[in-house]
Parts: sequence; structure tokens; C-alpha cells
Amino acid sequence: MRLRNIPGARDVIAGHEAVIKEEKQWKGRWDQVFENDHPIRLEIGMGKGQFLMQMALQNPDINYIGIERYSSVLLRALERMNALEEAPSNLRFVCMDASGIGEVFEKGEADRIYLNFSDPWPKARHAKRRLTSTAYWERYDGILKEDGTVEFKTDNRELFDFSLEQVVEAGWEVKACTFDLHNDEKMNQNNIMTEYEEKFSSKGNPICKLIAERKR
Amino acid sequence: MRLRNIPGARDVIAGHEAVIKEEKQWKGRWDQVFENDHPIRLEIGMGKGQFLMQMALQNPDINYIGIERYSSVLLRALERMNALEEAPSNLRFVCMDASGIGEVFEKGEADRIYLNFSDPWPKARHAKRRLTSTAYWERYDGILKEDGTVEFKTDNRELFDFSLEQVVEAGWEVKACTFDLHNDEKMNQNNIMTEYEEKFSSKGNPICKLIAERKR
Repeated sequence: MRLRNIPGARDVIAGHEAVIKEEKQWKGRWDQVFENDHPIRLEIGMGKGQFLMQMALQNPDINYIGIERYSSVLLRALERMNALEEAPSNLRFVCMDASGIGEVFEKGEADRIYLNFSDPWPKARHAKRRLTSTAYWERYDGILKEDGTVEFKTDNRELFDFSLEQVVEAGWEVKACTFDLHNDEKMNQNNIMTEYEEKFSSKGNPICKLIAERKR
Repeated sequence: MRLRNIPGARDVIAGHEAVIKEEKQWKGRWDQVFENDHPIRLEIGMGKGQFLMQMALQNPDINYIGIERYSSVLLRALERMNALEEAPSNLRFVCMDASGIGEVFEKGEADRIYLNFSDPWPKARHAKRRLTSTAYWERYDGILKEDGTVEFKTDNRELFDFSLEQVVEAGWEVKACTFDLHNDEKMNQNNIMTEYEEKFSSKGNPICKLIAERKR
């Protein structure tokens, strides 16, 4: 997701206490940011943050970090957070490109990674930018704990097919897979919808989801 | 695949030496049928047998058994076999329903199972008849050796999606997966096309393939 440039976005972000600046300095000690040793889960490309904010509110004993590349998008998430009666203390944001996560998190520091409706980068020459290409699976392995998982949702069938091929190629195991999440009783339990998911599923588009774990 | 009933088909089949009759008596001792201890690979729903016949000719040190439910279809395979200059000694056929394989093969007796362009049984109420539904994965596990694999090809996307969901649900690991076999350099190596595959891929339909192994 990209929004048009918003004047002042960077300043708002820089001044917001939920946004972690100079994120590399926290590598290996994110527990100090949250001041507890609860599990840490990331959403990469969190967009306007509806999903992660609900997760944070529902699960106070889990820490959440939303990673978003575009300041104009992160700004929307901050606005949403500011509108809450009480901001969840287990939620932080980082404005960065996902390719750099290995410099920000230590191996084993993340417990789970969520990828929701990631940019499909439809042109073949941009395939490496897709968050589910083999190089990204390597990056996720570099920060997840041993039995950590990645959960990926999309309504884009081409991207989902590509992702299935790549995750297997990268040496991960598909633990669960559905091509119609909302009609899959087991996988849809406790599902929290993103903004995109609400929009696209209301048009009747089926949502695909996979859960993967690195093979040992 | 089903063909119209062919008068005399059963007699031809009954009299052909490559067709194994009273197949249950060979359970656990198929090596005696082939008079060697080479690996045994099955194709379930082999149709007119082009794939399996080529496999048998190319790999004389592997034994192949083609399983086909319909005598009218098996007859076509026998006609094809009779047309060969020399019939491969490592190829046999069984006319039976795939649901009964557990009564015909011992656990560990099969080394690999091929499913090629299986009947999609498109109606939801027939889902259990699909050769890639969870009950079938259980049956395959009941006859395959420990690290044995199932290789499944189809051009039917709905069936392939269903199969991916079911194989994961059944506790198998997807070892390889492609949604466009003929453009996947690695997976297409040594690919032998079935009659269906030649027909459908020449129309531009992509072929999907997965290779799965039971998790231990």
C-alpha cells in the first residue's frame, strides 16, 4: 500500500512514542523496549494497522511490532491508535524496509510473522520484491525462533501460487493451507480481518492463507 | 477416464499375462510376481497407460504396476502394450478400485505412487472419491515405504487446490510444488507426459504438480 505523500508525516511519526526510531540499536534486546519477556510477533507491511491493533488489544500478553515502509501509511495507523481510548502498551511500529529485518532483530527474537495482503509486485522482474520470495523466507528464518511460524493471507491467487512454490523451494514446511479461508472452519477460527480482507471478501473474493515453519 | 463398454474386454483382460488376477493373494510378495526385489511404483488411474509404459521402458530396474478401475480403459493399455516390439517385463496391470489398495499391497511394499490427471469429481458430495482426499492419503501411507512419495499432476486448478489443502491436512509434507510444470526447469526434468497432458498443455493450459511425503 502506498498513499500520496502527506506533508508533515515524518514529523508526526518521529514524535510518536509508539514508533521506534533507530531500530537497529534494539537488535537482540527488544524485551527492553516492551519491558517484559513476552513473545514478539511482527506484521510486515501492516498498512493502516487494523489487524495488528486488534491483535494487540485481544492479546495483552503478546508484544506486537508493525513494520511499514511508507510513512504516509504508518501515519494512518498512528491516527487510528490515537483514536483509541487507551493505547495498547504491547504495540510498537517501525518505519523501515522489510529487507533489513536481519539488522533489527536477532535470530530467535520473533515468535511469529504475519504477512497480510502483501504487495503482489505483478511484473516478473519485480518477483524478488515480493515478501514471499525465497530470499524473504531466508530473512524470516534469520529472526524467528526455532518453531516460529509465518502466517500469510492474500486474495491474490497468482501471488499465493507463487508463495506456495517459493516457500517449499526455500525449505519450509506448509503446516496449513486453504484457498477459501472464510469457509474453512478450522483455519478461520479467531481470524481477524484486515481492511483489505473486509473489502475484498465482501465482493466474494476468496481469501487464501498458509502457515509455514522452517524445516529443521 | 471411462470409455463405453467394450464387448469382450473382460475376456481379453482375463487372458493377458501382464494383468494380475486375484491380486490380493500377492499382498506382501509382489517381488515374486516380478521375480526380483526391485522397487515397485504404482500409477493409480493409469488410463491408456502411455506414461507408465514409457516409465517401464526407460527404467528396467524399477517395477511398475498400473491400477485402473475400468476394463474398457485397461483394454486400451493392453492394446498399446501388444503393439510394442517387446513387452517390458517390469510392467503389470491390476483392474481394481483404488480404495482397496490396502488389501493388495503390504505397508512398505510400494516405493512411489503416481497420480496423473485424476478424475476431479467436481461435485462437493463426491469429494471423498477424489484420489487426493484425506482418506486416500491415509491409504497411500498404508502401502508406501517410510520415505516413499506421491507425485500428482493435473491441469485442473480446483482439484489441485483441493489436493494441496487435503495433503497438508492429512499430515503429509509437500516436498515440491509448481503451478506451471512445463515452465519449471527443475521439476520438469525427465517429465514424461500422459496423453491428457499432451492434449491439455498443447492448448496452453498450465500443468500443476506436487510431490508429497508422509511426515514422520
